Amino acid sequence: MKSVYFFNEGDGKNKKLFGGKGAGLMEMTRLGLAVPPGFTITTEVCTKYYGNSKKLPKNLMVEVRKNIQKIERRTGKRLGSEKNPLLVSVRSGAAMSMPGMMDTILNLGLNDKTVAGLAYSSKNPRFAWDSYRRFVQLFGKVVFGIDDKKFDSVLHDAKKEQNVQQDYELNEESLRNIVLRYKTICQEDTKKQFPEDPYRQLELAIEAVFKSWMGERAVVYREKYKISKDAASGTAVNVVTMVFGNMGNDSATGVVFTRDPSDGSKRIFGEYLVNAQGEDVVAGIRTPQQIIQLKKEMPSTYKQLLRTCNKLERHFKEPQDIEFTVEKGKFYLLQTRSAKMNAASMIRTSVSMVKEKLITKERAILRLHPEDLDQMLHKTIDVNAAKKISPIAKGIPASPGAASGIAIFDVKTATNMGEGGTKVILVREETKPEDVPAFFSSAGILTSRGGKTSHAAVVARGMGKPCVVGCTDIKIDYSTKQFFADGKVISEGQMITVDGSTGSIYTGEIPTIEPKLTEDFTTVLDWSEQFKTLGIRANADTPEAARLARTYGAKGIGLCRTERMFNARDRLDIFVEMIMAKTIEERKTVLEKLRTLQKQDFKEILDIMQGYHVTIRLLDPPLHEFLPNIEVLINKVYALEKEGASDQVVATRRFLDRAKELAEVNPMMGHRGVRVGITYPEIYEMQIRAICEATAELTKEKIPVHPQIMIPQVGSASELRYVKAIYDSIKSDVESKSKTKLKITFGTMMEVVRACLTADEIAKTAEFFSFGTNDLTQAVFSFSREDAEGKFLPEYFEKEIISENPFQSVDVNGVGSLIQIAVSRGRAIKHDLEIGVCGEHGGDPRSIKFFNMAGITYVSASAHRVPIAVLSAAQASLEKRLSESPKRSRNKR
Amino acid sequence: MKSVYFFNEGDGKNKKLFGGKGAGLMEMTRLGLAVPPGFTITTEVCTKYYGNSKKLPKNLMVEVRKNIQKIERRTGKRLGSEKNPLLVSVRSGAAMSMPGMMDTILNLGLNDKTVAGLAYSSKNPRFAWDSYRRFVQLFGKVVFGIDDKKFDSVLHDAKKEQNVQQDYELNEESLRNIVLRYKTICQEDTKKQFPEDPYRQLELAIEAVFKSWMGERAVVYREKYKISKDAASGTAVNVVTMVFGNMGNDSATGVVFTRDPSDGSKRIFGEYLVNAQGEDVVAGIRTPQQIIQLKKEMPSTYKQLLRTCNKLERHFKEPQDIEFTVEKGKFYLLQTRSAKMNAASMIRTSVSMVKEKLITKERAILRLHPEDLDQMLHKTIDVNAAKKISPIAKGIPASPGAASGIAIFDVKTATNMGEGGTKVILVREETKPEDVPAFFSSAGILTSRGGKTSHAAVVARGMGKPCVVGCTDIKIDYSTKQFFADGKVISEGQMITVDGSTGSIYTGEIPTIEPKLTEDFTTVLDWSEQFKTLGIRANADTPEAARLARTYGAKGIGLCRTERMFNARDRLDIFVEMIMAKTIEERKTVLEKLRTLQKQDFKEILDIMQGYHVTIRLLDPPLHEFLPNIEVLINKVYALEKEGASDQVVATRRFLDRAKELAEVNPMMGHRGVRVGITYPEIYEMQIRAICEATAELTKEKIPVHPQIMIPQVGSASELRYVKAIYDSIKSDVESKSKTKLKITFGTMMEVVRACLTADEIAKTAEFFSFGTNDLTQAVFSFSREDAEGKFLPEYFEKEIISENPFQSVDVNGVGSLIQIAVSRGRAIKHDLEIGVCGEHGGDPRSIKFFNMAGITYVSASAHRVPIAVLSAAQASLEKRLSESPKRSRNKR
Repeated sequence: MKSVYFFNEGDGKNKKLFGGKGAGLMEMTRLGLAVPPGFTITTEVCTKYYGNSKKLPKNLMVEVRKNIQKIERRTGKRLGSEKNPLLVSVRSGAAMSMPGMMDTILNLGLNDKTVAGLAYSSKNPRFAWDSYRRFVQLFGKVVFGIDDKKFDSVLHDAKKEQNVQQDYELNEESLRNIVLRYKTICQEDTKKQFPEDPYRQLELAIEAVFKSWMGERAVVYREKYKISKDAASGTAVNVVTMVFGNMGNDSATGVVFTRDPSDGSKRIFGEYLVNAQGEDVVAGIRTPQQIIQLKKEMPSTYKQLLRTCNKLERHFKEPQDIEFTVEKGKFYLLQTRSAKMNAASMIRTSVSMVKEKLITKERAILRLHPEDLDQMLHKTIDVNAAKKISPIAKGIPASPGAASGIAIFDVKTATNMGEGGTKVILVREETKPEDVPAFFSSAGILTSRGGKTSHAAVVARGMGKPCVVGCTDIKIDYSTKQFFADGKVISEGQMITVDGSTGSIYTGEIPTIEPKLTEDFTTVLDWSEQFKTLGIRANADTPEAARLARTYGAKGIGLCRTERMFNARDRLDIFVEMIMAKTIEERKTVLEKLRTLQKQDFKEILDIMQGYHVTIRLLDPPLHEFLPNIEVLINKVYALEKEGASDQVVATRRFLDRAKELAEVNPMMGHRGVRVGITYPEIYEMQIRAICEATAELTKEKIPVHPQIMIPQVGSASELRYVKAIYDSIKSDVESKSKTKLKITFGTMMEVVRACLTADEIAKTAEFFSFGTNDLTQAVFSFSREDAEGKFLPEYFEKEIISENPFQSVDVNGVGSLIQIAVSRGRAIKHDLEIGVCGEHGGDPRSIKFFNMAGITYVSASAHRVPIAVLSAAQASLEKRLSESPKRSRNKR
Repeated sequence: MKSVYFFNEGDGKNKKLFGGKGAGLMEMTRLGLAVPPGFTITTEVCTKYYGNSKKLPKNLMVEVRKNIQKIERRTGKRLGSEKNPLLVSVRSGAAMSMPGMMDTILNLGLNDKTVAGLAYSSKNPRFAWDSYRRFVQLFGKVVFGIDDKKFDSVLHDAKKEQNVQQDYELNEESLRNIVLRYKTICQEDTKKQFPEDPYRQLELAIEAVFKSWMGERAVVYREKYKISKDAASGTAVNVVTMVFGNMGNDSATGVVFTRDPSDGSKRIFGEYLVNAQGEDVVAGIRTPQQIIQLKKEMPSTYKQLLRTCNKLERHFKEPQDIEFTVEKGKFYLLQTRSAKMNAASMIRTSVSMVKEKLITKERAILRLHPEDLDQMLHKTIDVNAAKKISPIAKGIPASPGAASGIAIFDVKTATNMGEGGTKVILVREETKPEDVPAFFSSAGILTSRGGKTSHAAVVARGMGKPCVVGCTDIKIDYSTKQFFADGKVISEGQMITVDGSTGSIYTGEIPTIEPKLTEDFTTVLDWSEQFKTLGIRANADTPEAARLARTYGAKGIGLCRTERMFNARDRLDIFVEMIMAKTIEERKTVLEKLRTLQKQDFKEILDIMQGYHVTIRLLDPPLHEFLPNIEVLINKVYALEKEGASDQVVATRRFLDRAKELAEVNPMMGHRGVRVGITYPEIYEMQIRAICEATAELTKEKIPVHPQIMIPQVGSASELRYVKAIYDSIKSDVESKSKTKLKITFGTMMEVVRACLTADEIAKTAEFFSFGTNDLTQAVFSFSREDAEGKFLPEYFEKEIISENPFQSVDVNGVGSLIQIAVSRGRAIKHDLEIGVCGEHGGDPRSIKFFNMAGITYVSASAHRVPIAVLSAAQASLEKRLSESPKRSRNKR
């Protein structure tokens, strides 16, 4: 097996074998660009090294020597020469970029003899000794693991002795002296002579780079960025001829992006320093020049740089981030890699590269990261401002965007002040349906309890309000209307800022940046529409949300939750009255009031959607969710008893009794959804009639409408049949009374495991399926999300029991497997069955790829995530196409 | 299509077409037994009748007429003859026996003219007019729907007029008069002449029988006994020549079982009446004679009866329940069907019929009803005693058996009095783990809340204690130590009886009957062992339970719940101390104490099981289940504050805080099982070490042992791997310290849906699977059993959304389908993987058949149900064998 590849022996494709840096250098060599000669020791050698109790393979150094000789032939220099010595750098480079996490050694090949050769060949003894100094320090640190401080203190003393401020003011003699002292440090530490043989130096350096792969920094980095062992099995080692940007004023070093990464515009962007080495740029001692200055200072080099940038972009079809060095007027490329850019710049470059005919639309779509688009769709904290101020607390980011307002601790005040025009942040331990009016009038929500599907989180996301939940860093005291965090007290009326994208809480008002859908963004979405096959709808419960959904390009509403309509101020009381009703008759009378209100809601939403599908889910939560909390009621009873308010005690006791009667041990698996619909059929009857009447009235007005009635929590076909019979009779009643034919379809949520397993039976009654992946995930894992995210999931991540939160990205092996069973059993009965996804996974790019593959008809996401879903769906289609005919498509690219 | 079959045209196999009665009559005719000539109109005609807006098919009466003529040829009588008239009965008869639910008409063919013919041919005018009277009344009631009272009042008046007491004392003239008046009633009611044409009578009677199929009585009966529309699609109609047991002292009628149904012994058993019709026996006016008397009174008839009984038994291979009539010395059979017997008699007859070589052992096993065996395995209420006393309340029967004791409302008193020897019934709204000590010392448990998997139910079943739960009929007032039911007040100390088999609650002590395992029972179980392939283990948590399991024939323990061991009096305090521990170190110290206790438990159980598998499940419930209820704690704090007991307030608050911290919204899907094991690894470490040490110590003593460590709530292979690593290291530590090789296997519960879906991945780590079908059913349905059984399941049954409680009998389409997926995915990795079932379904016969079919290795049931499981498993094997090679096996039978 070949262990070492000279740069002209490989190309850029095999990053796994050569690492990113090595592959880049090889590709540039292949392109005929000026890369200093060198070679790469493969990642496989690293794996062998660890497989062989950390010993280098036997013949490695033989191969290395042959490749050094190749360099020598090309450069005319020789490793160890006392006249014209070859110096090399030894650099790490894994398949995945891990900047700064592993070690590099420069100027290798210097020793007491070759330093003289370098002085001679460079005609610059000071430069030679400075290079030697740098080498010994780096070697001592990297290979021997000697603390940098020891070297620094020698340097510090030398400067003191010479009475100078900067390193470059030290003269040759001082540098000679420093090298001597440095070597003494090494010898004292290792009890050995400093290695003078350049090949021995090289062997030790190669080993040191391999060792740094398992160094603490690198291991922690891989953990943090979840780089799996498969994706990066080890580091390669690159041995490259040294070139020097510090050999006078005709030398320079710099870093350049082929396009401006801050906005994506087509102009090179970067910095350089004359007479300097790369590390000097980083050290920040001298201020680097803007790259445009190079045009004046070194016009021909600048031209060469521009040509190189163009060539690289044309070749890689991706903006590049390159390092270059000019040695005595000669231009060298030391590295190239794809430029990292923010979402806006990625979009801009995608569009302009297509216009320039550099890439196809397909590639323009595929190179984008859908998740990053989220940055552009919400107000964000101004990064510059936030840098200076540190957050006082961190919670779970539950609904993205940033908002400032005064802290308010109760719903009534929040509602009143918010409606009065004051910007308010509602701060609660947790929220309940009756708090929803305050959501409308608050700029943001902060809770100290609950997870990503807590009431606050779900409602806020639906409304697109910034929200931070489960912020255990804060302690709320309702009695004094204060919260405590980071040793501070925040009282009612004090200004705070919540960042729902990061979970950070700040005191005061932090400047925010408004989102905007740029023209380029719209272009990218238009292209995506052409490629995608998956439909994209939005979750929207109110007319406002429906309008927002259309703005963001949703083609229909995939989930309209009717219970949200009961939480509006004017309705919650009626709904509670319905729950407290003592007889069916009383309940029916109250329901009549709700029917009028719901019909109006449905009419508005259907009107806005102009014939697009609107999937309306009938009541889902258990009834007790609409009543106050039992603990609160108990405490209230005690308080009222103390006050002697006996009338109120009786009334509150009545609530307490009903709440207890309805209370459940496991509400998630209890009396809810279709189970409420079957045991209180009058509720579903009311909702179905409201939908049918709304449809009839709009149809008469010639407004195109297509509502879909969706039954939640169905586990057995018989449940669905029961409600279908009610629906059939109400529909034909409304049709005959209104003399209109109603275009409505009737289907079911797929969120109960049993429904998935018996999808064939259910498909006989359902005209459509829609997977509720939130509940389905909970049922498949037997995780209650509210409990899991607060109690054991954090530790599960820490202990690597799970690597991905299944509530954010669909669990393909478990939940996905069940979805596939359901799709295939359902379509066995109705081969063209419409099958949607309306859980939160509908907005997750990775999940969307799975849904696309599984044959799902459409996904429904919250309005703000519709663009992300559109782009993801396009990528999913393109990737599927590529995987199905890899050759044809690769050529196309 | 042929609609009518003469009795010699069919046989006994096609009950679906001919109904049970028709098939029986045909089969007897085929056997050459003395069945009065007749024919059957098929159930298909009934279906047609209802499919054709309740009209008889056109040509039906033509076919009927032809068959009447056949009867006439055989009997020499003629329908409508004025000399020797033919009379027939018209009887219903569906595929499933529905005794008394549909209508019958006797003596059809009589009219004003033929009555004279009957008087002439019978030489008994009084008999003729009496028959006519009976006919008109029955016809009026059944065909015209006239209220019986109208006829009864005429009869009453007539007897008054004649000054006699009994019907048979009325003379011919009175009877003539009565017939006249009866017919007037009919004419007034129908505004039509009473039909004189016998064929018209016959047509109306046939239609009336068909109508009675959808009569209220029949519909309710089918609902109650869950007879599906498929199983019984309609009734047949049997038209049979009348024979009369009331034609003098050489006539008689009787009912006979071929074996004594009360104990199964081989002797005919029954009653008869001389000179009477069947209805007279039922009416109870004259006391029937024991059948043995017939030997004296009618010796030749008795001989013929014995011969007939033998012939029928030999033919049907099943004890029969027959009706006979003797008309002037001539013996007729009117009906035969399999005798209904209690479990003990079924077992006894099975064994004796095999001894008599009447049936094979296979058939002896297959004819038994496993569920009925339950009667024999628990103390039962003495039926005779219970008849006289009605229950004051009914709850959910949760653990079978009956017990009497004084009502006690608190755990402490129950424990103390119980230990002191008093028989106690613990009465609570619900129970908690800390109440378990009282379970040991109580004779029975009664709760007003909770379902079949509530804490009380599960613990009681495990201990084999009679238990009734969810008894909402009673209202408990702890403060006065009373409960209210049925308008009565039951105070502490008052004697009550609970029947856990029926859910009934009685005041006072109701006599009970002890269970016994008869020799025949043991024989049947021995035979079952030979046929079954499924292994049978028992659920047992304590040494006592393990001993019981062996008594009942369990070959191993399939589920040993370790948390039960923490509920014993001396341990709960330690366990709570562990939960309240402030640091890991403190917790570990407390766990050390528990380890010693658990090790002792495991040693005892393993010793008892002598090398049989003992599957030990590590801690499963969430920790908060061991702490007192939050509501109770809140109230306690308020009460203590009032008393000013500030020290205790602080202590209680600490409990309250910890309980709140651990509280969960959905504990069923929360922080429990392996999730606790991973987040508090020290708990599982303690348990695993206790098991390993117990195994090592017994192995050293040369006692054969085979524990299996089972991890609950596993959803991902990574969870199992995490615990496996802990297990591996502890096991090898104990092995090296004890210098013993430990024979332990390591596996997982399959009770989380995701585990089933990813069974292939899990099988790589697990050495065995064991389905926890309780939790799996809850997860598949998204039903919390505790909530479902109390809230909506009753209405689901009522509305026919479900027909079978999935917690009692496994839901084959949903849960079963998932089990099959898991079995096939798991065995794809390890083809001989041991796969058990340890949920409650392990003791359910119908479920056992499914498990046997699905390739399950063993089921584990509560000790008391082990015999039922053994028998069911044998039946499952035999049925599978039959279905696989139907011909061979049928011949064998």
